[in-house]
Amino acid sequence: MKSYLECIPCFFEQALRAGRIATDDEQALKRLLDELGKKLHQISLDSTPPETGRLIYRMVREITGNPDPYRDLKRQSTREALALYPSLKKTIEKSDDSLLTAIRIAIAGNVIDFGVNASFDIETSIAEALAGDFAICDYSAFETRLAETEEILYIGDNAGETVFDRLLIEQMKKPVIYVVREEPVINDATIEDAIQAGIDQVATIVSSGTDAPGTILHTCNSEFREMLDHSAFTISKGQGNYEALSNENYSIFFLLKAKCGIIANDLGVTQGDIVLKGINTGI
Amino acid sequence: MKSYLECIPCFFEQALRAGRIATDDEQALKRLLDELGKKLHQISLDSTPPETGRLIYRMVREITGNPDPYRDLKRQSTREALALYPSLKKTIEKSDDSLLTAIRIAIAGNVIDFGVNASFDIETSIAEALAGDFAICDYSAFETRLAETEEILYIGDNAGETVFDRLLIEQMKKPVIYVVREEPVINDATIEDAIQAGIDQVATIVSSGTDAPGTILHTCNSEFREMLDHSAFTISKGQGNYEALSNENYSIFFLLKAKCGIIANDLGVTQGDIVLKGINTGI
Repeated sequence: MKSYLECIPCFFEQALRAGRIATDDEQALKRLLDELGKKLHQISLDSTPPETGRLIYRMVREITGNPDPYRDLKRQSTREALALYPSLKKTIEKSDDSLLTAIRIAIAGNVIDFGVNASFDIETSIAEALAGDFAICDYSAFETRLAETEEILYIGDNAGETVFDRLLIEQMKKPVIYVVREEPVINDATIEDAIQAGIDQVATIVSSGTDAPGTILHTCNSEFREMLDHSAFTISKGQGNYEALSNENYSIFFLLKAKCGIIANDLGVTQGDIVLKGINTGI
Repeated sequence: MKSYLECIPCFFEQALRAGRIATDDEQALKRLLDELGKKLHQISLDSTPPETGRLIYRMVREITGNPDPYRDLKRQSTREALALYPSLKKTIEKSDDSLLTAIRIAIAGNVIDFGVNASFDIETSIAEALAGDFAICDYSAFETRLAETEEILYIGDNAGETVFDRLLIEQMKKPVIYVVREEPVINDATIEDAIQAGIDQVATIVSSGTDAPGTILHTCNSEFREMLDHSAFTISKGQGNYEALSNENYSIFFLLKAKCGIIANDLGVTQGDIVLKGINTGI
């Protein structure tokens, strides 16, 4: 997905939000926004939003001197999600369609996103995702391709959300490679975060190599790109991965909550909607 | 009021909102935001938000070539407000405290602000302002000073809101000098807009001389500044005038709706609250 003019004020909001978590030095924060302002003319609307996100969070790290501002928030999100794990596991097991319920719960976890919001309510998100209709629901294609595949490539998104991904992974009952970011960026999951969520017990964790808040291919390592090239069944979680991958020529099932109005427009849905969208799935 | 870091993303939103009304040329709009980005490091947080607003709307005019993007919206706002005038006049006349009701209605009109919002609901704003409590209400000081003064200096804000100001002017029953902007900026009222609202029938209209969306004194003409120096009773409408005048050493009654969270914080109230605040009123 390309960037829109409306993304630009939001880039400044994101920089300020991340900056405030990294430091309370108002002068450093002003400098951060000034530097982003100076670079703005180099940011093309043809680039995807996570490319600018990558630039912003690099600047946050450089200017504030804090390499991982969201570290504590990530730990806390994962702890809170782990506390919900047992009851969500039961909800899935008791459900008439356990796979679809696990998908709904995995999407509900996508609300844990400090890039889009300063706060969120995970329990409300779960209730909504369990009760609400999908705006796009390519579930039958998902089921068909899942039955055929021998392995799943699962591109994760945020720390904490990882616990909800684990529930879906357990439900799919196939070998899974779980992909995380190489470097901390916003509250996106790194290997450490995935392990805290217990993903290592249900999948093989690999790094995509990127330090962007989305799977921008030219920033990824060759191992991951090769896996993606050869994957028969790929799941991509969240907005940042959608933004980075939606125009690439791969067969991918995107699972996300359309938290931002611009992405909702791009998908042709309403802000807040839940989406299971297959691209190039051949069905 | 000084600017806050949170104002910066909002400056970009304002530029884009005004730019979109002036042109649909996406490249020109990107250039507008890029130019604002380049100038950002020159914008001090010690300056008031309307100073940056002035810069932004100058850039909008220059880059889009449209000298008055809000012209049609202003005309329409005034026409819509005039249609409400007869029933609001009756509401005031029937009220137990007609002056306070006229103040409430004048504040309700302050919702007509394209600088803060892309849309608004004037009828809801009236209902809220008539029914709701003031977060700050220096009404007794207002009444006392009004009884003593021979003349009122009334600093207007937006086109359309002018009609609601007219109702308050009629209720105060004293000679009024009504102050407007010199040049079109956002939907702020100029002389032409005040005349369309019928202000010329109830007050003497003067220009402050400014092309800013707020009464920034160093941008005003000497005639207005002299009036302000000698005024025994001054009313200032809206956020932009509050931002520009709240730290100046004048006796002023500010009438506004705190539409923006930053101004609400500055005033110590909640976003959406209505405010009648006297500064340096000696009471």
